[in-house]
Amino acid sequence: MTGSDFDVLCIGNAIVDVIARVEEDFVSRHGLVKGSMNLIDEARAEYLYAAMGQAIEVSGGSAGNTAAGVASLGGKAAYFGKVKDDQLGAIFRHDMRAQGVAYDTPPAPDGPATARSFILVTPDSERTMNTYLGACVNFTSKDVDRKAVESAQVTYMEGYLWDRPEAKEAFKLAARIARGAGRQTSITLSDSFCVERHRESFLDLIRHDIDIVFANETEIKSLYQTQNFDGAMKAIAKDCPVAVLTRSEKGCIVLRGEEVHAIPAHPVSKVVDVTGAGDLFAAGFLRGFTSGKTLPEAARLGSVAAAEVISHVGARPEINLGAHAHALGLL
Amino acid sequence: MTGSDFDVLCIGNAIVDVIARVEEDFVSRHGLVKGSMNLIDEARAEYLYAAMGQAIEVSGGSAGNTAAGVASLGGKAAYFGKVKDDQLGAIFRHDMRAQGVAYDTPPAPDGPATARSFILVTPDSERTMNTYLGACVNFTSKDVDRKAVESAQVTYMEGYLWDRPEAKEAFKLAARIARGAGRQTSITLSDSFCVERHRESFLDLIRHDIDIVFANETEIKSLYQTQNFDGAMKAIAKDCPVAVLTRSEKGCIVLRGEEVHAIPAHPVSKVVDVTGAGDLFAAGFLRGFTSGKTLPEAARLGSVAAAEVISHVGARPEINLGAHAHALGLL
Repeated sequence: MTGSDFDVLCIGNAIVDVIARVEEDFVSRHGLVKGSMNLIDEARAEYLYAAMGQAIEVSGGSAGNTAAGVASLGGKAAYFGKVKDDQLGAIFRHDMRAQGVAYDTPPAPDGPATARSFILVTPDSERTMNTYLGACVNFTSKDVDRKAVESAQVTYMEGYLWDRPEAKEAFKLAARIARGAGRQTSITLSDSFCVERHRESFLDLIRHDIDIVFANETEIKSLYQTQNFDGAMKAIAKDCPVAVLTRSEKGCIVLRGEEVHAIPAHPVSKVVDVTGAGDLFAAGFLRGFTSGKTLPEAARLGSVAAAEVISHVGARPEINLGAHAHALGLL
Repeated sequence: MTGSDFDVLCIGNAIVDVIARVEEDFVSRHGLVKGSMNLIDEARAEYLYAAMGQAIEVSGGSAGNTAAGVASLGGKAAYFGKVKDDQLGAIFRHDMRAQGVAYDTPPAPDGPATARSFILVTPDSERTMNTYLGACVNFTSKDVDRKAVESAQVTYMEGYLWDRPEAKEAFKLAARIARGAGRQTSITLSDSFCVERHRESFLDLIRHDIDIVFANETEIKSLYQTQNFDGAMKAIAKDCPVAVLTRSEKGCIVLRGEEVHAIPAHPVSKVVDVTGAGDLFAAGFLRGFTSGKTLPEAARLGSVAAAEVISHVGARPEINLGAHAHALGLL
């Protein structure tokens, strides 16, 4: 293994978030379950958008947020993800590059529009996501730039990619290339319902091709079909070299073989919108991990990055996270 | 004069704001003057956008913000302004209608893209605007819906329209229709450099065709080419039936003939982004004015609406201003 061009390469669905505050009853009235991620078609997207109030648009996408976070923390980040060559695609590309992320996936010249996630934020700061995948359906193995994968210390991918066969193949190809080049692979389980849809193949993947798994409490319990967190913890510690389990305000647990590290959450004066908490936690952890920090140090960076992103609307950092972490003595 | 369908009809440049925080030196490095509004061409727009960091997109436009504010305050608002039939145009139209504003100006099927204003917010919360007018160049007298103007208590227009001859003609036509129907007309001077560009014709308009003028301290001083606020105050009181002069944290002065009312600013715990302060002040004032409130009561509504919009990023209200004003006993 030679030197690396990138600390972290992130692969995921390239999405622009359309965020609006809604009252509690809006979510139930539209048959939605609070806190969930729903895949929707174009007609449903139009219906929901028409029903939503005034919104703001911010670049998003789970792994996209993570790449932006790694870059904001001063790490070398790259990203693969598909937009269309349209106005929202231009916004997504601008925001990635403006954050310093290497992003060269060619936009689709035709086909569906750039993906949007209609995110409803209820008064309790919880988010309910409704994602129209649009141009993401054009992301395939052809978009996996072998050289970039080979030159990244960690290739990190979102479980959401599993929802489309072509994206799943691209994910698996990237994992093979990374492993073949002596690099490390990482996945976030993304969402408990995503885990339900793909449990068996996620388990197979984690057991054979993944070095670092990220999951929250619900997701890891869903993976092993148990309500017992301890049981799920023991299982993932056997199945994967490193597991990072986030538990919202309870902090996180990092497991490596017999090692168990419990790290408290970084304090937040006011939680405004929890969108992107997991994505930014992964960013902080991977930034620390790839720069030689210990597991607890890396997890602390994750907590700090997550705390920043939930203190405002939108899932991309609003401050220079590297300077912030430096001021806290973490970088 | 019969009953009115609309309390306030607003006419202006339909713009999507692209907002990014920048460091102090970004503004000077790009040859900009802090706090100004600069009209830019497409090449300059691309150059500035490439230089800017991660941004968020929010519907804006001065009179558009005012219309949204009137509607949020429970008033019946209408809007005329031109977007293109593109993704940003769809966002602008959605946000207007989602706020309850009657907005039926047909989007341009071709020609330049929907207008964007690249807004740079410095650490002192001041905003520097760079506006690419795009599809606004297609706004003409044909877009003035006579029936809507005739049925609005007040037709409110932004001085920015004066920067394009066709839009200026549309403005004058709307003013003539409103006056002919026994309705009232109103203008915001928009920006002191806009006043400089159009001083003589603004004065002529105000003296003959306008019932309510909105201006901040700099703008009214520029209009009368004086550094003396008292002098400018006396002049505008002679030239226009009602003048509303805003002075940021010093509150505002409302003049009607011999009447002079000084109203303090509504307290703000933290100023985040001053974009839209004047627009929302006008919204609150006009909502009060058209519902029969006294001038000081109307000005207080203006202060409350302005205070809300400067406490967050973006120039559209994030809360239900009507409920907020009601809780404060103002509506």
